[in-house]
This record gives sequence, structure tokens and C-alpha cells, in this order.
Amino acid sequence: MEVFTTVKEMKAYVRAVKQRRETICLVPTMGYLHKGHTDLMRMGRGLADHLVISIFVNPTQFGPKEDLAKYPRDFERDSRLAEEVGVECIFYPETLEMYPPGYATYVNVEEITETLCGLSRPTHFRGVTTVVAKLFNIVEPDVSVFGEKDYQQLTVIRKMVKDLDMNVRVVSHPTVREDDGLAMSSRNRYLSPSQRKNALVLIGSLRRARELVRGGEHDAAKIQAMAVDMISSTPECAVDYVEIVDPDTLCPVDRIDGRAVMALAVKVGSTRLIDNAELK
Amino acid sequence: MEVFTTVKEMKAYVRAVKQRRETICLVPTMGYLHKGHTDLMRMGRGLADHLVISIFVNPTQFGPKEDLAKYPRDFERDSRLAEEVGVECIFYPETLEMYPPGYATYVNVEEITETLCGLSRPTHFRGVTTVVAKLFNIVEPDVSVFGEKDYQQLTVIRKMVKDLDMNVRVVSHPTVREDDGLAMSSRNRYLSPSQRKNALVLIGSLRRARELVRGGEHDAAKIQAMAVDMISSTPECAVDYVEIVDPDTLCPVDRIDGRAVMALAVKVGSTRLIDNAELK
Repeated sequence: MEVFTTVKEMKAYVRAVKQRRETICLVPTMGYLHKGHTDLMRMGRGLADHLVISIFVNPTQFGPKEDLAKYPRDFERDSRLAEEVGVECIFYPETLEMYPPGYATYVNVEEITETLCGLSRPTHFRGVTTVVAKLFNIVEPDVSVFGEKDYQQLTVIRKMVKDLDMNVRVVSHPTVREDDGLAMSSRNRYLSPSQRKNALVLIGSLRRARELVRGGEHDAAKIQAMAVDMISSTPECAVDYVEIVDPDTLCPVDRIDGRAVMALAVKVGSTRLIDNAELK
Repeated sequence: MEVFTTVKEMKAYVRAVKQRRETICLVPTMGYLHKGHTDLMRMGRGLADHLVISIFVNPTQFGPKEDLAKYPRDFERDSRLAEEVGVECIFYPETLEMYPPGYATYVNVEEITETLCGLSRPTHFRGVTTVVAKLFNIVEPDVSVFGEKDYQQLTVIRKMVKDLDMNVRVVSHPTVREDDGLAMSSRNRYLSPSQRKNALVLIGSLRRARELVRGGEHDAAKIQAMAVDMISSTPECAVDYVEIVDPDTLCPVDRIDGRAVMALAVKVGSTRLIDNAELK
């Protein structure tokens, strides 16, 4: 397995692959890999001739008051895990390699970035689309895999790829969960034992919502109220948002007839967790 | 010569070229071609195996009060000229092909788009970089040619390509001029005979500025004052801006020691013309 830290080296590798008319799958990550990531990589392995991952804790997607500095990092462990899964090459740039002094260009998807997580993190998705656009230009993947746990991110990236006519197929992977249902996330490690237990209210309220829909409830407001109530009455938990939205436009739906996704963000202690599920 | 009106057809052509490992040069235009464009195309012909041009009057780079509707169009004449120069294929999409309903993604270069033309046209360059990013994804050119007449545009595109790690070489072509020195522009046709004569103050003030610098003048403010005075005292002419800037950062320079560009925008009647020249 190779590790490239510069854009130049990474592009040279890509050029060689393209010369042989072979294909590349890219799985972008911020490192501190867990089973959520490695499952994406296993999927990616089957989608192209070469599997490339990127490990880059992208500063432009963190807000000024967010946890960039304390975001967990462990490159040695990450590269061991990546190698085990069959990753062929890791793109692992320093911040200055991606954003040199004077950097000034941003890709922004409007509208769908202004709801849900965009409300409490107003510049987050602009950072995500910018770094993903850069990674797509550097690695030129034929296909790229994103997890459904970050549902809004997945939707925003699909929208960017479509709008800008990018030459990459975006594939999604279902949310990977712990045995008890908690969605895997690098942020789970911030949870105390009691918070870890209370965090189950995220999957709990999603499951309850599905049951209600299966039982014939169509009124989004009622289901939303149930989830807000369930979360608010759980110790250490506070609702950031609970929304039932159209899966493509992320616009709120009033009545659940066609496809609908319930998306939620919950502060468990000081750790903000997100999760989502298709209700129908 | 082929004409493609859909992204899908254009991408199929590009895929076939890439499969043969041949190269593409793209010259983006808004049509109504003149010698300024055809000289760029002649240059482009020598830079790659295949010469592609685009003809698209891009609505996102026009302000709400600007001349989108009356921008001149003549596709028949354009395609004849393109064929004569050796263009192999024209990408000629409708507006809805480039910006379908719900379109929401924009590429923006900050800072250098906020001076010069960006002051009076605040969303102009965002429109330019967005459409050029799309064209680069659709045509995947190895090289693309832009005219130096639109100096800020050239600088902004170079910055976007660098910042987003795009895989295209940007080549510039010197400003093409009429025999009397007026920079070629599709907007010149709006000029009345007297305005056409008075418009020579653009090249006149640039030439006078070069003479002053050659004669030992280093004070940018003095040269700027001379040009403002020259333009303001010409009938039908009003200064939009006269600036002496660093060629890369477009920041104003006080003292002309190293490289410096004088850039100007002048309203001649209701037609806004731009021009520029390296002073040193």
C-alpha cells in the first residue's frame, strides 16, 4: 500500500492508472477509521480496479467553535486497517498542501445546505463540497462511496456532482451500526458510559417512527412530536433538530405518502450526534 | 465539424477521444465570433489533437440590469467561422441544458473577484467560474485558451484551476486589436460612429501610461490621474475604474517597480468597454 502526501504524487499515480485505462474508486475520510469506514472500503473494492482512500481532517468544514483541534487522529492504526481491507493507496495531505496561503476558491451548493445540519453549521457543507471537489480533481475517481449516515452530506454531494457535470458516480452505503443500533461515528468516543447508553434514543426514536408509519400514521408533525418528546425526556440529551424530509430535496414533508426520511441531530452531553432512517 | 447541444453527446465525444489517448483544447466563447476569438482558436489548434469550442451566452455572469437579452447571437455565422479555423466540434447547449430547474451549485473565487470589474458587477465572476468549471468537467480539456483582454477573468480562472487542483493547463492569448488599436469585443458593435472614435481613448491612455513608465515615472497615482483625466475629458466617455495592479493578485500597486498591469473600464455612451496593458 502506498501513501501519498502531495497532490503531485497523487496525480502521478492517477495518470499512470488512467494510461492503463483502469478505474479508480475513492473513499474520502477524515481518518480515525472504524467499521463504518471499512465497510465502505469493502464495498468500494468491488466497484473499480483500484481503491484509493483519502485521510484529511478538513478544516473548512469545521465551524470556528467546533472540534477541529481535538478531532481524533491515529494514522498508524488507520493505515493498518486500510491495508487489511485492501486499500491500494492513501492520499494523506497536510492542511497546507490542500489550502496553501492565499487559497480563495469555494464550491457551494445553495438551498439544501441551509436546512438540517446547515442551520447550526452554516459553513459546514461549503467546506465539504470544496474539499470533495478538490479530491475528485486530484484522484479523478470513476466512482466514490459515501455513507448514508451523513445523509445530508450525501445528498449535497450528489447535487454538486449533477450540477457541475462531474465525471464520477456517487454510490451510497447503508449506515453501519453497533450491535445495539448506535450509528458508528468517530465522535462516539467522546461519550461517557451513561451518555453512550442514552445515545440509543437516536435509533430508538427512528425505530419508533417507522413503527408508527407502518401502523398507518401519515401525519409528519405527530411523528416528529413523538421523537422530540422521546429525545427530550432522555437524560443528557437535547434535540438540535428532528425533521421529516423529502430524500432528494430535503424539504420538509407534511404528509408521509411517498418516500420520506427522518433526520435528527441530538446533543448528548456536549457531543452532537446525527442519524437518519427512511420511514417509507 | 460536429455540433453537440447536450452534455451527454459532448461527454460521449470526449470519452472516445480519451479512449484513444488523444488531447483536447477548449476555447470557451459566448459566440458572435470575431478575430479575437478566431486568433485564440488558431492558437488552440496547435496545443492539442482536437480543438473544441463552446458557444454559450451564460446567464449567470450577467447582472440583473445587464444586457443578456440583447447580447448579439449569430450561430450560423459562428459555425462557418469556426469551421474555417479548423474547429472540430462546437458545444452549443441551451440554457436549460446547463442550468436545469433547481440548479443550485456555484464556484466562487473570493478576493480577486471583488475588485475592478467585480465592484460594478458583483456576481459576474461567480457566473464565469461556475460555467467554466462545468465546461471543464464536460469537455475535460488538457488545455484551454483565454484572451488577455479579459485580464481579471483570466486571473480568476487561473486561480480557480490552481485552488481546485483542476487538470487543465490555462494558456493566455494577447489581446487582439483593430488596426487603430481598439480591443476587439462583441460589444463594439453597440458603438455609434462617434463613440467608436472616442473609444480609442482606452488604448490611448494605456499607451500614454506605458510611455510615462518608460520615461521613468514610478508613481502609480500620477499615471492613474493622467488616464482618468484623459478619459474624462473625452466626449461620451466616463471612467468606471482605472487601476494599476499586481498581475497575479490584482492588488493595487503604489510604486511601479516590478510587473504591473493597468486595467480600465470605461462607459462609452451606454456601452461598457474594458482594456488593459502591462506597464512593465
